Amino acid sequence: MTNKKNPLSANYRLGFLGAGQLARMSGLQAFRYGIQLGVFSDRDEHEPVESMTPHSHTGSFESAEDLITFAETCGVLTLENEFISSEILKQAQEKSNTPIYPSPATFALIENKLIEKQTFEDAGIPVTPYTLIQNDRQLTEFGNKHGWPFLLKSSKGGYDGYGNETVHDLKEALEAFGSLGGNEGHNIIAEAFVDFTHELAVQVARNETGHEVYPCCETVQQDHICVGVKSPAPVEKSIRKKAKELALKATETIDGKGIFAYEFFLKPDGELLLNESAPRPHNSGHYTIEGCVTSQFENHVRAVLGLPLGSAALRKPAVAMINLLGTDQRDAQVEDTEQALAENDGHLHIYGKLDSRVGRKMAHYTLLGNDLEETYGEAEELTEKIRI
Amino acid sequence: MTNKKNPLSANYRLGFLGAGQLARMSGLQAFRYGIQLGVFSDRDEHEPVESMTPHSHTGSFESAEDLITFAETCGVLTLENEFISSEILKQAQEKSNTPIYPSPATFALIENKLIEKQTFEDAGIPVTPYTLIQNDRQLTEFGNKHGWPFLLKSSKGGYDGYGNETVHDLKEALEAFGSLGGNEGHNIIAEAFVDFTHELAVQVARNETGHEVYPCCETVQQDHICVGVKSPAPVEKSIRKKAKELALKATETIDGKGIFAYEFFLKPDGELLLNESAPRPHNSGHYTIEGCVTSQFENHVRAVLGLPLGSAALRKPAVAMINLLGTDQRDAQVEDTEQALAENDGHLHIYGKLDSRVGRKMAHYTLLGNDLEETYGEAEELTEKIRI
Repeated sequence: MTNKKNPLSANYRLGFLGAGQLARMSGLQAFRYGIQLGVFSDRDEHEPVESMTPHSHTGSFESAEDLITFAETCGVLTLENEFISSEILKQAQEKSNTPIYPSPATFALIENKLIEKQTFEDAGIPVTPYTLIQNDRQLTEFGNKHGWPFLLKSSKGGYDGYGNETVHDLKEALEAFGSLGGNEGHNIIAEAFVDFTHELAVQVARNETGHEVYPCCETVQQDHICVGVKSPAPVEKSIRKKAKELALKATETIDGKGIFAYEFFLKPDGELLLNESAPRPHNSGHYTIEGCVTSQFENHVRAVLGLPLGSAALRKPAVAMINLLGTDQRDAQVEDTEQALAENDGHLHIYGKLDSRVGRKMAHYTLLGNDLEETYGEAEELTEKIRI
Repeated sequence: MTNKKNPLSANYRLGFLGAGQLARMSGLQAFRYGIQLGVFSDRDEHEPVESMTPHSHTGSFESAEDLITFAETCGVLTLENEFISSEILKQAQEKSNTPIYPSPATFALIENKLIEKQTFEDAGIPVTPYTLIQNDRQLTEFGNKHGWPFLLKSSKGGYDGYGNETVHDLKEALEAFGSLGGNEGHNIIAEAFVDFTHELAVQVARNETGHEVYPCCETVQQDHICVGVKSPAPVEKSIRKKAKELALKATETIDGKGIFAYEFFLKPDGELLLNESAPRPHNSGHYTIEGCVTSQFENHVRAVLGLPLGSAALRKPAVAMINLLGTDQRDAQVEDTEQALAENDGHLHIYGKLDSRVGRKMAHYTLLGNDLEETYGEAEELTEKIRI
């Protein structure tokens, strides 16, 4: 049984709801504090964290009972995804008497795209223009007001471009509305295409001891997938400052305890629009493992354990991160890493997934340097031969 | 079953012989490469690594069969202590067809203090004056030649001052000879007290792809236990350079593949004497986790997996490490860490041992800064209130 008082105890267990690479990288930081790791997975297949602990549980994310059984073995629970409803989290927390951070109340304010946008809009944080779509007429109206094409998004559960459709006309819009589950009662929102020059991201760690705001970085996207990150973002300092202010304000708005990530569009006129938020470590912050004094994963653990947070300052003037996506469909293995490993201040992280699939996030590579574009270019070159 | 070809595979397993904090900190670096961890412990009590993997084995370090059973589940084995004989390691390697690094042949050259000193002396590396003690007369002769007091050491198995006795006269020497097992056939060596100004240490990572030599650091000792480390060592640059050269030469002498640590005495005349070596990560190198671009633990893993090594360069001009020894006899928990955690570039590591004992190595704290003595003093202050 877990110690429930002092989290810095060898018999204290931090439980992760979800078992993928975010839990794996957070778990590595939990281990440095001498504690144990519990993991709750909703999948039968092997998951990255399961090889890191003897304390693996399997169950349904929709079953409060399954979560309660797991919660009772842990001192605190945390999230690595947005797949569990705030209502189920609330029940699990109350019945098990094990706290969950980010809290169910925090999560309730951002748990689907509609509520999330309303929450931040109400707080005065500019968000991408959107509307809830309930009939054909609203599709036409949205297109007429904001221009075609626009995006249709399932309000719950999308990531890496899944659950999103770009629609160019009413016919496509109606098809997408159906394929996204609109006819089965799923909330579908329309979102305007924003003309932007950069996609930016900021992570914020926050708990009762204070907060740490990470540098504003740029996420480089291809086909709705983040392929790389540049930090600090190559935009004016005042823009980075503004993005950090908005990110902190957003975290305060939801009274967040844990690590949070915010993605922004930077418009040509310098305006920032909040695009998405995540109540967990985020791909845009993987570079912080070596790139910052304290990584997003370590501050995630510190935040949920109620410990003082560590500095989010950059270790070097320029940090580049390249996502290594699956190149083949096969048993996972990584080849041709020699150049990347041998490079000074180049850092490879592999997630321990058993199967490679083309385009799947399998690993990442971080390179620290002095000039941003040069460092990013080098990181791309050093990783271009890697097969995974 | 483990993949035996490409170590960067999700079903590749790195096996540790020993389950303490050195295996724990190395294991954290193994996980970053997406691989699995196997652990072989010779103890019934819970060990730090056992909470980090579902693949724990228990057996005897003196049983080749136990080791073979374990080795067959792993792609490669490595050591975290010197408690298994090279002969048993050799048998385990041959019968399981699983390589062990450092190799049994390497370990055979340093597996006890007598052989170790002969190996390095033969290679022209200056060592502390010593002799094998086989009778009373040799005790008197050694004292007369090198002066009283001197040290008696059990040739095998000592650490942190255990297995060592300081003897001031023949009566004490005879008693110590007996208590160290000399009358039961254990090899006992006499070692002269060396007049030194500093105790220095150097770690070396080496494999078929090359080598990396870490900065020469100073180990601060109290009662034969390392209480702290300063890096780089506050001695002349030429001395640090010489220590690094000797450490590399020693590693080449034993054809080492893995991570190795060497402790030196610096005499007032500037001469360096090799005191001890270890074919594994070492307490003197814990500061490298944040203090160097690539830690001793990561290069340990890279070296035994046959991967290119990472840079051993310091991240900042001054790095201080403080060992946090048990302050109480109780269930392990760490208290009053707030100051240490909140300090910029201060890094706490707790080992996950279940029981605190006074003086037991339970955790450590690393602080990065610009001025060595100032940084070390701050690290001492920040940790003095911690109870564990």
